[in-house]
Amino acid sequence: MSTTGARVARSAATREAIMAAAERLYAEQGLSAISNRQISEAAGQGNVTAVSYHFGSRLDLVRAIMVRHGEEVDALRARHVAEVGDSTDLRDWVRCLVRPVSEHLAALGVPSWQARFAVQVLTDPVTRDLIAEEALGRPGLHAVMLGLRQRLADLPPHVRRARGEMARHLITHTCAERERGLADRTARPHASWSDTADELEDALVGLFTAPVTHPHPRTKEPL
Amino acid sequence: MSTTGARVARSAATREAIMAAAERLYAEQGLSAISNRQISEAAGQGNVTAVSYHFGSRLDLVRAIMVRHGEEVDALRARHVAEVGDSTDLRDWVRCLVRPVSEHLAALGVPSWQARFAVQVLTDPVTRDLIAEEALGRPGLHAVMLGLRQRLADLPPHVRRARGEMARHLITHTCAERERGLADRTARPHASWSDTADELEDALVGLFTAPVTHPHPRTKEPL
Repeated sequence: MSTTGARVARSAATREAIMAAAERLYAEQGLSAISNRQISEAAGQGNVTAVSYHFGSRLDLVRAIMVRHGEEVDALRARHVAEVGDSTDLRDWVRCLVRPVSEHLAALGVPSWQARFAVQVLTDPVTRDLIAEEALGRPGLHAVMLGLRQRLADLPPHVRRARGEMARHLITHTCAERERGLADRTARPHASWSDTADELEDALVGLFTAPVTHPHPRTKEPL
Repeated sequence: MSTTGARVARSAATREAIMAAAERLYAEQGLSAISNRQISEAAGQGNVTAVSYHFGSRLDLVRAIMVRHGEEVDALRARHVAEVGDSTDLRDWVRCLVRPVSEHLAALGVPSWQARFAVQVLTDPVTRDLIAEEALGRPGLHAVMLGLRQRLADLPPHVRRARGEMARHLITHTCAERERGLADRTARPHASWSDTADELEDALVGLFTAPVTHPHPRTKEPL
């Protein structure tokens, strides 16, 4: 390998080490408890400014970790969408929301930190905005939203949107609880990520198809 | 008022000011972005160590804010439970989960910060443990859990527990999104907290009553 090639490879390895250390420390101790210095040290970097050298700000590091997982989940999602084809069964489309997340987490092994890290990022007022826009641009997610929308054409648009948001909360937070349970051994023994996905799919089909008390919103709103 | 009485009153007012400032700053900028010094300053305290003087640690301050709201919500909850009596209608019991939260937030006015603060506290690995145990000891919540359990006696215990967790996530995160929408004026115009509660109740009745794919867990577990 050329000297430049070696340097690039070393830099990529350092970035990986920093991302892994950050995700773990944030998941275990919280976004608010961990400094860039602690991350650099946990990543085995002698230079305590390694985070800023390789990523810029803390927000850039958080974004890089979320983008990495987001892309992997969306690739799985695109595969599920292709399998589902033009199914008219709501559950098939709900599965396209749930399985890519549970399968990605299952593939990370035990313990993983991604789900516990993600829920903090998604509830922090600054980091959530970093992620929201980007997630909407993912092609797999876009295809699932379209498929779900067609299956839920009878729901008033404001209810469909509200339940879509609810689905997102349910999936991310249920998976984070399970990840925590696996890490500290309080999760149901022998239950698998696939069982959790089944439970989420059951619940979400019920949620999406529940009767609507107020089918007409009190005000007009854009479709 | 005696000198001691005046001092006690002044100290109570300072604690109030610190709690209000902390909740607002944490909600708007994030648990991880805000220092105790910033909170002391925003609370109009000349002494930048006011947080530690009045509360001890940051965790003690977070706990004090959560306990305050938790007690108020639970008082509303006890009232709903009394109204529901021995109703056998699942929706009545779902209402006892949802309404105390939405009514408490409605009473705080616009903008409020409690819901956005709470979701951060509940996803942070350290602060969540502070809160969890205490919440379980609240009498109103305990009564609702019992009522729900009787209405959901046909659900396998592991599914009932999982759906109870899901309900908690749905309520807290949906309310936080609405609070944010009200604060930055992106919420549906004219929709009220009561409309949000109706939407949550619809969704939760669907979630709790959805058919179960795996009625038998793969392993024995305590009831």
